[in-house]
Amino acid sequence: MRRLFHLLMSPRCRLARLALTEKRVPIELVAPDDPLAHLPVLIDDKRVITGLWAIIDHLEGAYPDPALFPEDAVERAESLRLLDWLMGPFNEEVTKRIVFQKAPQAHTGSLVRQPPDMQTLRLGRQALRAAFQMLGQLTDEHGFLASREMSLADLALAAHLSALDYFGEIPWSEFPALTDWYLRMKSRPAFRTLLGDRVPGQPPVAHYAVLDF
Amino acid sequence: MRRLFHLLMSPRCRLARLALTEKRVPIELVAPDDPLAHLPVLIDDKRVITGLWAIIDHLEGAYPDPALFPEDAVERAESLRLLDWLMGPFNEEVTKRIVFQKAPQAHTGSLVRQPPDMQTLRLGRQALRAAFQMLGQLTDEHGFLASREMSLADLALAAHLSALDYFGEIPWSEFPALTDWYLRMKSRPAFRTLLGDRVPGQPPVAHYAVLDF
Repeated sequence: MRRLFHLLMSPRCRLARLALTEKRVPIELVAPDDPLAHLPVLIDDKRVITGLWAIIDHLEGAYPDPALFPEDAVERAESLRLLDWLMGPFNEEVTKRIVFQKAPQAHTGSLVRQPPDMQTLRLGRQALRAAFQMLGQLTDEHGFLASREMSLADLALAAHLSALDYFGEIPWSEFPALTDWYLRMKSRPAFRTLLGDRVPGQPPVAHYAVLDF
Repeated sequence: MRRLFHLLMSPRCRLARLALTEKRVPIELVAPDDPLAHLPVLIDDKRVITGLWAIIDHLEGAYPDPALFPEDAVERAESLRLLDWLMGPFNEEVTKRIVFQKAPQAHTGSLVRQPPDMQTLRLGRQALRAAFQMLGQLTDEHGFLASREMSLADLALAAHLSALDYFGEIPWSEFPALTDWYLRMKSRPAFRTLLGDRVPGQPPVAHYAVLDF
């Protein structure tokens, strides 16, 4: 059995889970002993593959079907641009400021443990609105983020949004294009793995696992 | 002419520069209008390629020789593990806490601008020592970080270390194995691009561009 060491509310771990299930690779989810360790870690046939970059590379090589990137070079670069942006700047400006403050450190792997700060939360919500404007335009134009087909960029955004949505932090009604995209993502069989998530003592908002609003 | 929009003291930008010069792709370096933009950005034959992940992927596809990753699958995964760790946790725990405090925001792209904090600096230096212990063991064992050959993991570490070294933040004498590795990296022709760096008003330490100590 393949195993994935992961944290519930870490976007990198959530993305690895989505990529594995999209490729129909069955895995057992395991909580690590140390939430500050370098995660996610995939154990596949006794090989230990550590870190998102290595896991994606391994999956594309060992389980090429379905591919996680568009075939066209320009669309592939666009998918990678968004992946890089979502796991970098978007993570810093939005997810860390919101999810990393609301969820316990043991489930995010946050480097710092500090009392929730309203100003940080406000900055995160502001950055979320600016990002959603841009992301909604992309899904409106292409159907998915980088092209007409779903790619890793979509899974990366879904990894973040599902964590934000768990805490009721997404003003869906203001962003109809992105809501439509998210409902399509949510209906994919791969998404079921995330919809059962429960942070002990912090139940999700009522619509978290609902496939329609 | 190819152009790279970059920031002097951003490890992601420094890594893109090293990868480009290792592949002997001549580039013109350009400062972006907005240091908070998603960087680095490569303009190659009118194609705009944004973000480290997309740039590495593009370089490996368009300029396969020399390859930036080992051929062996296990060594390739190890190189990617270290790349992911260096651009993720190491960046958070070491480089941001030191370089992002010492260099101006316009040259790092740091999201926050705050007065230098001695406690953060101390935590960074402590994390640096712990990381160096582990990294020195790797170079001692393999010659380079992931294998006997240089790979992207080495360039990623060099990108960080050269920025830390610029500010005299590396206790070289305590880490002979890593010092030996860094001098080998520094002597590579690709490294010359970094050794000429100057942050206005902040000259580097005396040994920054010296190829021996």
